[in-house]
This record gives sequence, C-alpha cells and structure tokens, in this order.
Amino acid sequence: MVRTLAQDVLAGNRRQIGRAITLVESMRMEDRARARELLGILGERPTKAVRIGVTGVPGAGKSTFIDAMGVRLIQLGHKVAVLAVDPSSTKTGGSILGDRTRMSALAVEDNAFIRPSPSGNHLGGVARATRESMLVVEAAGYDVVLVETVGVGQSEVAVAGMVDTFLLVTLARAGDQLQGIKKGILEMADIITVNKADGDNEAAARVAARELSTAMKLITADPKARRPPVLTSSSYTGIGLMDIWEAILDHRKYLEESGGLASRRAAQQRSWMWSLIDDELLEALRQTPAVKKMRTKLEAEVMDGKTSAMEAAQEVLTTFTRNLPASWLDWADDDD
Amino acid sequence: MVRTLAQDVLAGNRRQIGRAITLVESMRMEDRARARELLGILGERPTKAVRIGVTGVPGAGKSTFIDAMGVRLIQLGHKVAVLAVDPSSTKTGGSILGDRTRMSALAVEDNAFIRPSPSGNHLGGVARATRESMLVVEAAGYDVVLVETVGVGQSEVAVAGMVDTFLLVTLARAGDQLQGIKKGILEMADIITVNKADGDNEAAARVAARELSTAMKLITADPKARRPPVLTSSSYTGIGLMDIWEAILDHRKYLEESGGLASRRAAQQRSWMWSLIDDELLEALRQTPAVKKMRTKLEAEVMDGKTSAMEAAQEVLTTFTRNLPASWLDWADDDD
Repeated sequence: MVRTLAQDVLAGNRRQIGRAITLVESMRMEDRARARELLGILGERPTKAVRIGVTGVPGAGKSTFIDAMGVRLIQLGHKVAVLAVDPSSTKTGGSILGDRTRMSALAVEDNAFIRPSPSGNHLGGVARATRESMLVVEAAGYDVVLVETVGVGQSEVAVAGMVDTFLLVTLARAGDQLQGIKKGILEMADIITVNKADGDNEAAARVAARELSTAMKLITADPKARRPPVLTSSSYTGIGLMDIWEAILDHRKYLEESGGLASRRAAQQRSWMWSLIDDELLEALRQTPAVKKMRTKLEAEVMDGKTSAMEAAQEVLTTFTRNLPASWLDWADDDD
Repeated sequence: MVRTLAQDVLAGNRRQIGRAITLVESMRMEDRARARELLGILGERPTKAVRIGVTGVPGAGKSTFIDAMGVRLIQLGHKVAVLAVDPSSTKTGGSILGDRTRMSALAVEDNAFIRPSPSGNHLGGVARATRESMLVVEAAGYDVVLVETVGVGQSEVAVAGMVDTFLLVTLARAGDQLQGIKKGILEMADIITVNKADGDNEAAARVAARELSTAMKLITADPKARRPPVLTSSSYTGIGLMDIWEAILDHRKYLEESGGLASRRAAQQRSWMWSLIDDELLEALRQTPAVKKMRTKLEAEVMDGKTSAMEAAQEVLTTFTRNLPASWLDWADDDD
C-alpha cells in the first residue's frame, strides 16, 4: 500500500500527495513506520529543487508576496509548492481555508501545491513534518519549494535549518522594523526585500533598503563574506519579484560553487535526525497505553494539589520507562 | 546546601536568588535533583503574587512599558520581578545586558529583579525554567511578576499557561497591527493596551482602542462573558499606566470571585507537569553517556549520506532505551 502511494506521488497525483503528507504528519506509531517506508522510497532519487524559506514580521505581506511570486514562477515553467511552519496554528481553526484564500491566485494553478502548517503541540514536531512534506512534494516533481514561517522566533531557526536560501520580507518603516527584526534573523537572511514598495511607499522603501544594506555591512564583520542583497518589491505591481528570483538563483549558484549547498544539505539531514528523535520521544511517551491510562487521574491530582507537578512528572517518566514502545525494543533485539 | 540556598532566597538575598534561578535553569541531571529539592522547600508556602504576562508584536514597546510600569509599582510599595520567555535568545548574545539596558529605570531599583530569558534549544525547556524561576522570585517576596514574551507564536501560549492575567501591548496602526495580531492572541488577552499614545499618536491610539474594543465584542461570542478592556498608554508620559494596573487588579478580583483564579492555577500546575516531563525526556537522552559517545560519529555519517536520518534516529532511540537514566530506574525500584 505504501508502495502504491509512493508511485502515485512520483506520478504527481495531487490527491495522493495530500495523503502522503497527511501520513508524514501523523504521529501514530504505526503511521510513523509507514511514513519511514514511504520516505525511504521517495528519497532514493535526490532532487535539485530550490528550497526557499520566507520570513518576516506579521503584516510584512509574506503570503501576498508568495502568491504573486509563485504565479510568476509557474509562468516560467516551474512547479511551485508552498508549505508553512506555524506551531501556533490548529487545523480546526480553519488554517487550510485561510492559506488558500490568502494565496488566491496561486491556489487555482494546476502547477501549485499549497499546504498549510501541520498542527502540533511543539515546534519540533511541526518542523519535522514540514521537512518530510518537502521530500514528498519534491519527489512529486515540484522544483521550487517555498516554506513560509510566522513572525519572529524559533520557527525561523527551524526553517533556516531546512532550506537553502532564507528570504526576509520586511517593510519601509525602518525604525520599528529594525527593532522588530532581531539581529539573529538578519544574520540568517540570505536575501532581504523591502516589500510593499508601491505608490506613496516606493520612495520610502528604497531609502529603507539602502539603510538596511548599510546595516548589513556592519553585521557581516568579514569583508570577504557574501553580503545579502537588499531589494525592494511589490506584490501589487509585481516590481522587483523577478529580481528576487534572480537573487535566489545567484545565491544558489554561489552555494554550489562554494560548496555551501552540500554543507547546508548535510546540516539539514543532521537537523532532521534530531527532529525525528525528539518528536518520537515526546510522542512515544504520550502514546504509551500505561501513560494514557494514568493521565486523567494524575492530572486531576496535580490540579487539586494532592500531588505536586514534580512528583507527577517523575511518576509518568517511571511508567514510561517500564513500558517502552515495542518498536524500540524490537529494534534493539534485531541489533543483537 | 540546598537548604541554605532556600533560606537565603526566602530572606530575599538577591545574589542567592540569582543562583537559585541558575540552578532551576540548569538541565544537568544532578542539578535537576537539587532544583526539585529547592522548589519543594520554596513551594511550601504558596504566595499571593500577581502573575502578569506581557505580549505584543516586536516594536510595540513592551520593554519600555514594563520599565515605566515597574517603577510606578515599586513607588506603590510593591516588589517587582521581570522574567522573559524568548526561546530564540542565547545568553552569549548579550541578552543579560540587553534586558538591563532596555529597562534602565527599573534596573537600578532595589525592589526590582530583572532576569533575561533562559537560553535553550526548545520552548518547553525555556518555559519550564521560567515557571520555576517564578516560584523562586515569589518565595523571595516579589509580589508582582511580569513575564515578557517575544512577538507572536507559541511562546504566548506557554506564557498564558503560567500567568493569571495576560496583557497585550499593541499600537495604533490598526490595519497592520490587526493582521499581525493573531485571533488566537486576542482570545488569550485579558487586557489590551494601545501603546505609544502620546504626541501626534494620541488621537490615533484612542481611535484604535475603540476599534479593537468593537472587534473584541465580535470575538467574545458569549454576551455574558467578560470582555477584555481596551486601554491606551504611554510609557513616555506615564498616562494610562495606573489604569492598566487597576484593570489588572480588577481582573484578579474577577478571577478570585468567579473561581477562575483557582482553575487557572490548577491548569498552571498541570502544564508545569508536562513541561517537566518533556524537558527531562529530551535532556535525559542528550545526556546519556552512550548517546553522547555515538553522537559525533553518527552525525558525520548522516551528513555524509552514509546513514539516513531515519536510521540514525532509530539507532539513537535504541541506544537510549538500553541506557536509561539511573534516576528513573531507581525511582521505579523504590516504587516496587
């Protein structure tokens, strides 16, 4: 069954791509085994897809930017997949509808695949699922993958760990913006665009881009190091969008020639490995039947103050220790 | 030694409070045992401290707000502690200096204790440490605890899970702001202030506050439910700061009378329990000597493509399974 699913994904069947992503998003132990099998098959042929992370403070216009950029890339003959990392999203909250309506032009394109952020309790799990979804869409022939991330914070670090080029979308109100953009985010950026550079805003955007460019000189201490280009763009007029695509391709070329692409891909694999470990660890505990069984009663005792949170935590860990998942133990036996 | 530290904390010794927080922030297994002992002693006397979460998009002026508000509360006779949850911070990045200089008025007050965000790889660990730091400062007599959180995202959910009153600091540029503020954050807010309401901005802030107030009516579907007040404030002129403090006290009274305080505190304990479990799980694996030993070689193999990330993850989990921490097993034995 997994083999059939893999073939359908490789053939580019959209519905099956959706199913495959649902499978890699699932944390049920039996689904994880199937997901591993699926990714094993899909991962046999590494692709040359361009992986781009898109970040920026809320309101910077990331979604509209991706919408406008995506449509143009499809016109150039690309297949474009959009994924998202938003640990605060919940599927029931209608984020599927949200993402589709936010990217209304791209959503109706045959060569676009838009998938909202997986929901999840912890960033590690969300990031792990997005990383694996990326393998699915790439195997299905999508050669440009845009990973959108929300606002500022740890999601950016997670996304930077799974893409080749990290694009920061910012706005012209430089004072507030620079306060909002953390130095860490600036340091991660490979390309920066001052967005909404249209109408009355255009001149201000140009000034802001120049200022940011100067700021980047200060941040990149090594004079020989590559300095991220700072561009301006408007999703409304389309101005600057193709310049950004050129900058992305330039950066890609730079990475290939400097050996940076190989080392980024290697680091992505390492970071995926740790996502897998952490995620499986946290989920295995929650899905241990003995833990599930004690959970309600123990939580009630903690809430009543009969048991301290610290005692209860130890009790859960002990129970988990005594009831480790069979798949881990099996694996250990195989190995002997 | 832990007993002496606890006595010093209870006596309000600032240096020892700092040491106690360093201890609860540590994830070394032996430190965790000492931290549990410390928190056991400190937690014997529950306090009546007011726990306030402060959130808002970057640039909304949270730090300056806390600085101005904190100084006024000290003038009223309170002892004010400021903690932070920022999973993207790293201590080496100078966040200690950063927090102190950002809150320059408060930093020189004897009755203020400012502690930057613990650094950490995952939000769960940062949140767990902040929660425990809160117990330390409360035991030391700080009766107002302000927990600052960065931007939008999962940190807010974590902080909302450890405070009684959640304050959203926003700005007058309503269009961009409302796009930036997620509905989820608005739903979590107990009080909202439109900040930087001074000079040319004052009128716009009032309009924005009225608009937000209307928006809140739509969000809170139940007409009988408490609706978060929307105020305006300026850290520069001080206008509105005491109104916000009144609103915090009103909310506290409302919580006490409605039974909401007890249920929030109960939920805080439950959420702390899960932080403890997850954090110990992730850290125990990383600190298992056998895992540490294999780590470098295995990561190199994954980066070279000799081993797949999925195989390596299974190998680490198996190794962990075979070498579980003695403290978990000991506890299990005690229990038999």
